[in-house]
Amino acid sequence: MISNVSFAGGAMAPFNRRKDGSSFRDWARAAVQGALDDANLEVSDIDALVVASESDFFTMQLNPAALLADECGLVGVAAKRVEGGGASGHLAVHAGVAEVASGMARRVLVLGVEPSASHLKGTDVGALYGLSFDAWTDGMTGIDSTSLYALSAQAFMARTGATVADFARIAVRNRAHACANANAHLPLDISLDEVTASPVVASPYRRLDCSPLSDGAAAIILARTSDLPARPQGRARFRAAVSAVDTVRLGERSDPGFFAGKQRAAQRAYAAAGVTAADIGMAEVYDSYSGAQLQSLEALGLANGQTIAAEREDVFSAQGAVPVNLSGGLLGQGAPVGATGVAQVLSAALQLEGRYFGQQVANAPRFALVDTHGGIATLNAVSILEAP
Amino acid sequence: MISNVSFAGGAMAPFNRRKDGSSFRDWARAAVQGALDDANLEVSDIDALVVASESDFFTMQLNPAALLADECGLVGVAAKRVEGGGASGHLAVHAGVAEVASGMARRVLVLGVEPSASHLKGTDVGALYGLSFDAWTDGMTGIDSTSLYALSAQAFMARTGATVADFARIAVRNRAHACANANAHLPLDISLDEVTASPVVASPYRRLDCSPLSDGAAAIILARTSDLPARPQGRARFRAAVSAVDTVRLGERSDPGFFAGKQRAAQRAYAAAGVTAADIGMAEVYDSYSGAQLQSLEALGLANGQTIAAEREDVFSAQGAVPVNLSGGLLGQGAPVGATGVAQVLSAALQLEGRYFGQQVANAPRFALVDTHGGIATLNAVSILEAP
Repeated sequence: MISNVSFAGGAMAPFNRRKDGSSFRDWARAAVQGALDDANLEVSDIDALVVASESDFFTMQLNPAALLADECGLVGVAAKRVEGGGASGHLAVHAGVAEVASGMARRVLVLGVEPSASHLKGTDVGALYGLSFDAWTDGMTGIDSTSLYALSAQAFMARTGATVADFARIAVRNRAHACANANAHLPLDISLDEVTASPVVASPYRRLDCSPLSDGAAAIILARTSDLPARPQGRARFRAAVSAVDTVRLGERSDPGFFAGKQRAAQRAYAAAGVTAADIGMAEVYDSYSGAQLQSLEALGLANGQTIAAEREDVFSAQGAVPVNLSGGLLGQGAPVGATGVAQVLSAALQLEGRYFGQQVANAPRFALVDTHGGIATLNAVSILEAP
Repeated sequence: MISNVSFAGGAMAPFNRRKDGSSFRDWARAAVQGALDDANLEVSDIDALVVASESDFFTMQLNPAALLADECGLVGVAAKRVEGGGASGHLAVHAGVAEVASGMARRVLVLGVEPSASHLKGTDVGALYGLSFDAWTDGMTGIDSTSLYALSAQAFMARTGATVADFARIAVRNRAHACANANAHLPLDISLDEVTASPVVASPYRRLDCSPLSDGAAAIILARTSDLPARPQGRARFRAAVSAVDTVRLGERSDPGFFAGKQRAAQRAYAAAGVTAADIGMAEVYDSYSGAQLQSLEALGLANGQTIAAEREDVFSAQGAVPVNLSGGLLGQGAPVGATGVAQVLSAALQLEGRYFGQQVANAPRFALVDTHGGIATLNAVSILEAP
């Protein structure tokens, strides 16, 4: 029963570009210590570690789960690394949920970490990301992540009437949310005009529509409530933890602008949690690009089929019915790939417990949704958490 | 309860060096189809996929779980990749066990695959394997896997009196076992003298003491018995699925020749299964090098502290009390890293069910142990399976 799995605590090492010579080992240690402190636990209380990182090309460390266990003083624990492209961190959380729910572990530390691969040239990073789609087709054409996302967004715009102004509003809003988040990479006070005047990367996307590659780490601890220190105010807990794969090659999808795999994951999550989309009161949504947030919201069904109208009516703003990405999202908080999903779950859990370190939602809702994907919504992870 | 998790079926794509232009995608599809056939299930019966592969440097494909789901006709399933160096495949099995035991999935396909990185020069492969220890220390010294294993073996020999003749006996025996295994990479009929006369790689290890890098894939399906077709003869099932991390850097271990992390994993596994080492009737043991098999047997405690004597008295041979590596092990069956642990579990389960495709143990025991590690027994995975 995954509803037995509680959020025990968590922390981030800030998302940004480190200039201080520190490495992902340092950020991992900081996030782990922060998570232990937040959970009021000791290293010796942890019996399993799940590490998320996206690629050996970025970390230049094979078998990082063993290395990071050792670095974090966790010699002796069970360990593994989980990877699923952009969804790596979220899928690692799911693996941790499974270990606790199955009884295979009592207190699982989920640690997401990624260096921004600053040892590589930008063009090399682009080529490597090409390998995260179909390495034989997409990867070999030289097409990059932004171009594939742009193709998908163009199809989405043609079908739904979404505009670059809608995308720009999201780019501005998520950066504004990030201004309250001391861990955020891009806490920017920018205007719509600044977004739509920034350089084109791949139309419709301009530079300010794109999330950054960040350095950083995030860690959370999962356990049954009975295996945790007493906490009178209760704990956020899991109600659904599901994933679903879509066709890898964009051209083989019946609508390259619709995130069908994400819709499937969301529907499965609502069923598993015994809720409907209307029960979701806030969400952390995968906004690798501004338009991808809107495409994701459509697939998640959070506005009863009226996604574009809801976006324009500020339903997804901090004061709206379903605040989205109060953390700043990938656009504002930043994106160290392996850490992203872990940080999203951390933000949602802390919001539900009313103790978020950034912009706390005014009236914490009962249910929060967390959405992450790898590829162009190819491997989709969705969790639903419930307030204490 | 992991004792609810049954082995539903499985298959391998042969381990060898492909010269036919096929890729890991082809081997994966073959193993998956074989597993479905063996389990009498259809693609549509599978709701989750766990992929194991060791490194993007070998597959040149990021997010392989999504890609392989698509390749294998599994669009729509939950998916993730699990990695833990040499233990990747076994840890993926553990992730699958957790998903079934937690109720998060009904029928999980665990697919291990690895290409032998024949696109890389041998020296580059050696350097990459250096990154699977501590990339900053071991990895940068140029020391390779064989040298680290050799250092550990030297310490083991000094403490226990094990000799190169003991190692050679294992190198010969595992290759002999492989001769009955049509999926094996190195089914060799060799003599002790041939082993001890083969070229030195890193003393005490000679070429024939070393396991190969293979191409190949292996797939198994896990589920609760109630979610599977009726099978009057019953099914092998899991009784323990645990892992434990040791200190990464060999020089920081109190005895670099003793696999303390593996001992910890084994003791935890015996406790979880409610058995003792004396209850184990056969084992698939991680023999990346001939001496590592003996070191592993010592740590697993399968001969009541008399490992060397037991080895010399043929306790671990096909006719002995605890047959070890009837598949041929890594030395004989071969080692496509991500597939290794999956194939080990497959072999043990089929042996317990009395239907192994190679050398079937004469009297199938009640309990079989599977042992796999990454690093120099740094990340240790142990499973205990029970006969139907």
